Amino acid sequence: MTSTATSMEFDLDGAPLGDALMEALDGPYHAARQEARDTLTVDELLRDPGMTMDQARAWTLAALSHLATKGYGNRGFPLPGRPADPAAVVVGFEALSHGDLSLTIKAGVQYGLWGGAIEGLGTDEQIARWMPDIVTATHLGCFAMTEMGHGSDVQNLETTLTYDAETDEIVVHSPTPAATKTYIGNAALHGTSAAVFGQLWVGGVCHGVHCVVVPFRKKVRGKGVDLPGCETGDNGPKGGLLGVDNGTIRFDAVRVPRANLLSRYGGVTEDGSYSSPIANPNKRFFTMLGTLVRGRVCVGAGAAIAGRRALSIATRYALSRRQFPNPDGSGEVVLLDYLWHQRRLLPGIAKAYAFGFAHNDLIDLLVRCRAEAVPEELQRSLESRAAGLKAAESRFANDIVQVCREACGGAGFIAENGLTQLRSDVDIFATFEGDNTVLMQLVAKGLLTGYKEQWTGLDRRETMTKTADMVARMVLERTAGRGLVDDLVATARRRSSEASVLDRGWQLLMFEARERHVLESLARRYQRAARAPKGQLFDAVNEVQDHLLTLARAHTDRVVLGSFVAGIETCTDQAAKRMLNRICDLYVLDNLESDRAWFTDHSLMTQARSKSLTKTVNHLCAELRPDALALVEGLGVPEEWLGSAMLVG
Amino acid sequence: MTSTATSMEFDLDGAPLGDALMEALDGPYHAARQEARDTLTVDELLRDPGMTMDQARAWTLAALSHLATKGYGNRGFPLPGRPADPAAVVVGFEALSHGDLSLTIKAGVQYGLWGGAIEGLGTDEQIARWMPDIVTATHLGCFAMTEMGHGSDVQNLETTLTYDAETDEIVVHSPTPAATKTYIGNAALHGTSAAVFGQLWVGGVCHGVHCVVVPFRKKVRGKGVDLPGCETGDNGPKGGLLGVDNGTIRFDAVRVPRANLLSRYGGVTEDGSYSSPIANPNKRFFTMLGTLVRGRVCVGAGAAIAGRRALSIATRYALSRRQFPNPDGSGEVVLLDYLWHQRRLLPGIAKAYAFGFAHNDLIDLLVRCRAEAVPEELQRSLESRAAGLKAAESRFANDIVQVCREACGGAGFIAENGLTQLRSDVDIFATFEGDNTVLMQLVAKGLLTGYKEQWTGLDRRETMTKTADMVARMVLERTAGRGLVDDLVATARRRSSEASVLDRGWQLLMFEARERHVLESLARRYQRAARAPKGQLFDAVNEVQDHLLTLARAHTDRVVLGSFVAGIETCTDQAAKRMLNRICDLYVLDNLESDRAWFTDHSLMTQARSKSLTKTVNHLCAELRPDALALVEGLGVPEEWLGSAMLVG
Repeated sequence: MTSTATSMEFDLDGAPLGDALMEALDGPYHAARQEARDTLTVDELLRDPGMTMDQARAWTLAALSHLATKGYGNRGFPLPGRPADPAAVVVGFEALSHGDLSLTIKAGVQYGLWGGAIEGLGTDEQIARWMPDIVTATHLGCFAMTEMGHGSDVQNLETTLTYDAETDEIVVHSPTPAATKTYIGNAALHGTSAAVFGQLWVGGVCHGVHCVVVPFRKKVRGKGVDLPGCETGDNGPKGGLLGVDNGTIRFDAVRVPRANLLSRYGGVTEDGSYSSPIANPNKRFFTMLGTLVRGRVCVGAGAAIAGRRALSIATRYALSRRQFPNPDGSGEVVLLDYLWHQRRLLPGIAKAYAFGFAHNDLIDLLVRCRAEAVPEELQRSLESRAAGLKAAESRFANDIVQVCREACGGAGFIAENGLTQLRSDVDIFATFEGDNTVLMQLVAKGLLTGYKEQWTGLDRRETMTKTADMVARMVLERTAGRGLVDDLVATARRRSSEASVLDRGWQLLMFEARERHVLESLARRYQRAARAPKGQLFDAVNEVQDHLLTLARAHTDRVVLGSFVAGIETCTDQAAKRMLNRICDLYVLDNLESDRAWFTDHSLMTQARSKSLTKTVNHLCAELRPDALALVEGLGVPEEWLGSAMLVG
Repeated sequence: MTSTATSMEFDLDGAPLGDALMEALDGPYHAARQEARDTLTVDELLRDPGMTMDQARAWTLAALSHLATKGYGNRGFPLPGRPADPAAVVVGFEALSHGDLSLTIKAGVQYGLWGGAIEGLGTDEQIARWMPDIVTATHLGCFAMTEMGHGSDVQNLETTLTYDAETDEIVVHSPTPAATKTYIGNAALHGTSAAVFGQLWVGGVCHGVHCVVVPFRKKVRGKGVDLPGCETGDNGPKGGLLGVDNGTIRFDAVRVPRANLLSRYGGVTEDGSYSSPIANPNKRFFTMLGTLVRGRVCVGAGAAIAGRRALSIATRYALSRRQFPNPDGSGEVVLLDYLWHQRRLLPGIAKAYAFGFAHNDLIDLLVRCRAEAVPEELQRSLESRAAGLKAAESRFANDIVQVCREACGGAGFIAENGLTQLRSDVDIFATFEGDNTVLMQLVAKGLLTGYKEQWTGLDRRETMTKTADMVARMVLERTAGRGLVDDLVATARRRSSEASVLDRGWQLLMFEARERHVLESLARRYQRAARAPKGQLFDAVNEVQDHLLTLARAHTDRVVLGSFVAGIETCTDQAAKRMLNRICDLYVLDNLESDRAWFTDHSLMTQARSKSLTKTVNHLCAELRPDALALVEGLGVPEEWLGSAMLVG
């Protein structure tokens, strides 16, 4: 490793600004996040990347148990006498996301999914019955939702949960091979019970998807043996997350007591009849799924942190590695001095900050929705935002980890340098806890909710007015830091053609105008599509699928920017605040640059302005370059946690 | 797996068209490629993805030796009495690229790099001395170019090769830890000799980078032992290619006979003086590097084939997998019927065809350059095209394999389904045989060659005229199927504003206009930059780095399209030809759609036309959808070679 830049130089320049940036980005969760940084060690968090699958699984299980004793992974889950603390759950998951992602996901499966199913869908009695052994990682379990035949389409799961009045039991059954539960964490080896999702049948009537706790394996001298009627399998080697024992479970008329049916939103009474506080089956289904939203919040955060980690490694490497002589004769050039290297890494860092602020707001929203009886609209807003951010963050993570790997050249491909396992592990974040494409359609459809009904009988002109109203209402109601944003936008609107591209009001106006325009035009197209005659409905709706995804992106980008702007306002360190404003500029202009065709196509930007964006992004990169180390320090991944041999050597 | 679409349906529709497409895409190499399809079996090509690194290394070595006996991997290399056959080398590498990429790269290291160094840089005597044992995989060796301190910057390698007149030997030495050779295939375990690159010193004068054969390990009872003065290390686990034993080698004044210096382009005579047929050291260096261009040709092809493989798996899966009920009530929807799924896969298939045709032309060029004494300009054109295509193909492969993994959801992440190892293995194709960013700058700088000299003393107006001349000459001279393309472009130019976006002439005109415009503007900026005073030269040149990359992309895209258009002309099956024309449309419009901001920014496209592109791409996808199976059959990856459990189950 050739490096003449000493770490001394870095420390002198970087540390105070880096700390201030980190504190700002940590926001209201600074104390909890700092505690993790002060407490967890790299040995607890990272495994040797050379481990075989079997070794990785054993290490991950041991690390899970060890960290449970330190209160990591399991923090914030409800116990008798201890209420749930959703922020602690998310921040705890985030802490583990700085390390081996198998460990993170193993903890997520055990506490967040298996425990979360009971916490979200179980009665108080059921929570008291199961949670104590779950949060100590004593009773290992599974979240058995996905089936071979139905991954994204949960509403049409095939597994049946049939109430047998004779014996007062629930009969759990996989009627076809396609009904086999698959990709289930903890199913291949370590789990002994599962929260199994299936269609609940009571007295010959199907009440839709419910969840029941099913013991499926017992430990005999430390080895797992399938219980009668349960057949497990091992998904074997995967593209990553080798430490998580994903597997299959198939049920052949397995009987469990009625009391195992998680009954908060629907169950079978003592007299054998179905009962639910929510009459509408569709609403019940979405309410039940809604309780599981925390998983998406966690997974999005975890992905974003994987991105931060990769950026921390690649940026530090780019600050020490030199290649090719400087034509001006002053030795070899530091990688990060190359424009293109800056363009690869710095906009990624800006995105990482943007998602960080957006995530803090999302946690706040989660906490609000869990603490009080909130209007249904707010709960829907939480679900939509969690879905959109999860998709955006996992896309970001996949893309930026690859960019970082490539930016480190051959060294990036050697496992001990810390990027390859990250790359493998983060891949599936684009799929689990909701396939990104499916999630983004959810976001878009959420924004369109209500349109169909309200428009019946309106003509084209009325429709347009109505649409504009709804958009305004939604845009107005659903963003963090609303007052500030409104003021900036209002000012910018009065002089949008002369405003500088660095004018925050103009930037916000562009993000809002894009969302508004995409939503308005989609609403009209969607309304037409929904009127297609039977037999042509699929084609009609299918034709706007790309438009749906565009809307989801535009919406999520706008929400993220709102959080970024609001987050900067709360920063009290002036140097950090100035820097955050530059980072925010880079975030915005990088976004606008890649989407500038849309803006010129829709006359929201002139050719000249569109052409100027590249130059401005380049200038911003050059401006941020000297503080690159502080920027990654601000991302909050302690240098000791990076575990990258090339940064030590 | 739920699938009601029977393979019978597919076979009836797909096979004849698929075969005709495959034959057209195979082009002049159909017979050789078909022979591989008929001869190699999936067991010879693929390993169990669950193997540990040690097992994978052992399997790969055994498979290498086994395939050598069948004439795969080693075909086309020169032997005494047998001339080299560069097309056979590339097509042989391609055949192996359909299987485990560790095996492909192990073969590439042994024959293409280790053998290739001797073949390209050695005298006839040296070729006769070493090649027989190399092509039988008896004498395993390394290509020791990259050093810890210098990867991309080969000209500044630190290793020294010092001629000792006293003993008539070359002393091979690593003067610093940064001079240690690293990431060297075959170095960790299996190789016994290496072609070592370093600075040749003779009589106190440095003659630049040369290459010498150095034995560095002997086998003692089957185990490797470092020879005195040689210290090897193991790079250990990597992000992929686990079957290749990459490692480090460090030399402490290791002596080898003078006869081991590969001396085709420069060596030490019997009287101990340096002698070379090429007087200019810079030209000598680039001539020597130029002989190694075949490696880039091979690696680009291998990456593109990995992309084809992933597309074959994901498309076949998308044709059998169903998800979500059809709102028109006809069961569940086949994945590939969704617009977005089509948009994910079909433009990728179109790119795979485009690169296939471009690659056939590149092989032709390689063959021409090796067969005769060609003008230096043609050799430079080969190097430039190999660099551009390698970068484009490996970018394509990395992106599309990830898209395919995600398009297969959770199943895509399970190793036995054939995508995850592909994803891991293809990653490094973006880096080895030349980092993509460095290669693209080479391409762009190649296009700018000569400008500086020719412009001395010209004013702005003269400069512009000169630039336009040079661009025209280069654009005219360097494309396949030139006559045809010229006619189409000339016709389109007369009515470019009314031409349909499906008009091939207009499409070609757009690709040419983009390259021409980017080159002209870059040439002017570059000229200015080159005049910057000492001390500001780096900044001045650095400022246009993104412009260089844009040029390289625009150039490569245009070359690829030229090959595609020319390739279609040679297709004699009319149904296949019609289909290829549609695929070409999709290739072009997908490219223009993603770059449409550039075209509107530079007034080469109206807003209206830019906005119409998305709709046209969607329509093309819908049009190609019914023939999706034939399209992937045409990519030439036999179904039996896919080794994807989910397609069998």
